[in-house]
Amino acid sequence: MDIRQEMHAIAARARDGSVELATLSSEVKDRALLDMARGLTEHKDFLRGENRKDLEEAERAGLSSAMLDRLTLSDSGIETIAEGLRQIAQLPDPVGSVVNMWRRPNGLWVGKMRIPLGVIGVIYESRPNVTVDAAALCVKAGNAVILRGGSEAIHSNRALGHILQDAMEKAGAPAAAVQVVPHTTREAVEEMLRLEEYIDVIIPRGGEDLIRFVVERSRIPVIKHYKGVCHIFVDASADTEMAVDICHNAKVQRPGVCNAMETLLVHREIAQRVVPAVAANLQDAGVELRGCHRTCQILSGLKEAEEEDWYAEYLDLVLAVKVVDDIVEAIKHIEQYGSRHTEAIITSNYENAQRFLREVGSSTVLVNASTRFSDGFQLGLGAEIGISTTKLHAFGPMGVEDLTTTKFIVYGNGQIRTS
Amino acid sequence: MDIRQEMHAIAARARDGSVELATLSSEVKDRALLDMARGLTEHKDFLRGENRKDLEEAERAGLSSAMLDRLTLSDSGIETIAEGLRQIAQLPDPVGSVVNMWRRPNGLWVGKMRIPLGVIGVIYESRPNVTVDAAALCVKAGNAVILRGGSEAIHSNRALGHILQDAMEKAGAPAAAVQVVPHTTREAVEEMLRLEEYIDVIIPRGGEDLIRFVVERSRIPVIKHYKGVCHIFVDASADTEMAVDICHNAKVQRPGVCNAMETLLVHREIAQRVVPAVAANLQDAGVELRGCHRTCQILSGLKEAEEEDWYAEYLDLVLAVKVVDDIVEAIKHIEQYGSRHTEAIITSNYENAQRFLREVGSSTVLVNASTRFSDGFQLGLGAEIGISTTKLHAFGPMGVEDLTTTKFIVYGNGQIRTS
Repeated sequence: MDIRQEMHAIAARARDGSVELATLSSEVKDRALLDMARGLTEHKDFLRGENRKDLEEAERAGLSSAMLDRLTLSDSGIETIAEGLRQIAQLPDPVGSVVNMWRRPNGLWVGKMRIPLGVIGVIYESRPNVTVDAAALCVKAGNAVILRGGSEAIHSNRALGHILQDAMEKAGAPAAAVQVVPHTTREAVEEMLRLEEYIDVIIPRGGEDLIRFVVERSRIPVIKHYKGVCHIFVDASADTEMAVDICHNAKVQRPGVCNAMETLLVHREIAQRVVPAVAANLQDAGVELRGCHRTCQILSGLKEAEEEDWYAEYLDLVLAVKVVDDIVEAIKHIEQYGSRHTEAIITSNYENAQRFLREVGSSTVLVNASTRFSDGFQLGLGAEIGISTTKLHAFGPMGVEDLTTTKFIVYGNGQIRTS
Repeated sequence: MDIRQEMHAIAARARDGSVELATLSSEVKDRALLDMARGLTEHKDFLRGENRKDLEEAERAGLSSAMLDRLTLSDSGIETIAEGLRQIAQLPDPVGSVVNMWRRPNGLWVGKMRIPLGVIGVIYESRPNVTVDAAALCVKAGNAVILRGGSEAIHSNRALGHILQDAMEKAGAPAAAVQVVPHTTREAVEEMLRLEEYIDVIIPRGGEDLIRFVVERSRIPVIKHYKGVCHIFVDASADTEMAVDICHNAKVQRPGVCNAMETLLVHREIAQRVVPAVAANLQDAGVELRGCHRTCQILSGLKEAEEEDWYAEYLDLVLAVKVVDDIVEAIKHIEQYGSRHTEAIITSNYENAQRFLREVGSSTVLVNASTRFSDGFQLGLGAEIGISTTKLHAFGPMGVEDLTTTKFIVYGNGQIRTS
């Protein structure tokens, strides 16, 4: 069987599995998730052994220590993944809930019922925990999932796949609803992206290159975000201490993630006070600042920001700083250079707070809080499958509910249409 | 300027228009819609004159009388379009409504606010009324729209575009938010489908060929339905009279539309009674029946259905009829041959009604009512932009609300993330 046929067979099995899974009770699905958690902890040694193969190959290939770190499955890491499964089992099941129901003048009752999306393809890199997290969220929402991880984690992912499938079978759920693609070639991905008759949505997770590769080739709808160029705008009326604390948190707490701040915008009226205070705090934490012309006048010795800095997702202890005339310029800057991910305003001004929330077109907009909160768990959605910066279907952090859609259900008693 | 540059310029203008339109009040948007209605009625003669050019060219090209009919803008047709605009103006504005808001343990208030999708590209054929309907629904939801109609309606569409843009300007809304593409080549469509940095969603409306053309080339998400192979399942406990009435309505009232019934499934226990009754009624109305083997045993002289009949969207007075063993076979048949559009069950059995609603994976599922009700207006959504049979973003008839998305808004008072 060549790769084309094999991907076709995987997808066809997933489709069948999804039909069965869609009608299973919450109880069976949750039992499968708990069995997965048990399977992971019971087979820790097996998992660590398979993971070691990946790590050895990665070392031979000269991967960076950061990459090796992401690839590693430690005992405590496996326990964390299992705990995540138990938490997902406890979330409410979105499937079957009727989100709205109304009565038409002719007596028809019309409602919208949540149903699974069907088959979800997840394409991702390096971190083997994604294999489990993504599978669990998909199963919780009644979807079959096809998991295609990176070549560097293939032994780990296959091992995890076996454990997940065993748990599905033990719980009385279709094993075909959770499949790990055994091939690591790009050809396998390209085949997968053409199977629109079987796969309902593709969720890529990884670097911008991977995501662009997927978007350019997919006939299947893709939910994604390319990057997070997140802004904080410190308004004229901001509390300086709050601005310093939030900027520190947004830049320093975890600089390598997509909801970290990359550009700071400061109102010119408060710039003389705020820029030095924020800068001193961040420079103490090892952050390199790159300023606009006005920022460099306030703070000598800074590197001057170039045009490309305003587009940059540093994912590192680097921050671009710009002094702006007012909220209008701040919103325009975000519109022009931002990535529609997450932006925050620090302000005491009611009008400006409301205006920022209303007019900034990003997927998460905050007042007086750190950009780091744009995350499914932090916002109260429970575990998160990803973040979308495209507006269709989901915009922002996506939880289990975003892995469902709604169909119309209609209760009649013989109605026919007359016009 | 070549077509590539021109499409780029159109899309860039649309993007700017969408940013302005997104922040306009409901009042301004509704005034624009009412001004559009007034403009259409005031310029009836101009419109009919331009429409005549299209009709003359279409006659020369030998288009069918059905096509000519769809292309024609009559006085009363223009009045109907204007009335549609006034109705859309009266719908509630979805933009800015916060659909949910909750409090987190750390005191953050998190909500989801409805916002426009941005820029919508509509690609359609022949009917010039789509130009106005689609533009009005997009504007109501705060979206800019790029309208690319068929070559056969180019004079009508351009004329309508002028009137719509005049109304936008008069109302104080950006004219660039409603643009008719002046080119009718496929190249213009192909360019449009590549402009993912400007256009947020593509909605194609027309025949299956057009839709496949769009899906295969688009880098932008597409909301669509290929076809409607709609089923009615007459269960063993069905009321025969109700079955006859609903089948008549679903097949005969308007056979050329996507929510007309194409296949009738009848439970074998009731087939001896229902098949002859339904058949007599439909044959009186000029419907040609094609039966499965068992149907042909009950009703002599029928043409036997072939495999391809079960997939067929006849859009005509033709119906495939199949006798099935039970609801399980009915649901399986629909899963295998259906198009996920609309299906109905006729039954008096509570369990089967609930099971059909739950298990049939189509976008609209009805009990004891005609498939013809799956339509935005009939289900109470108001005017409809289209029907989606892909599950992402919208599934089933789409109203104004489906032309929006939600962003997360967060009210804080200094919260930072600690883990």
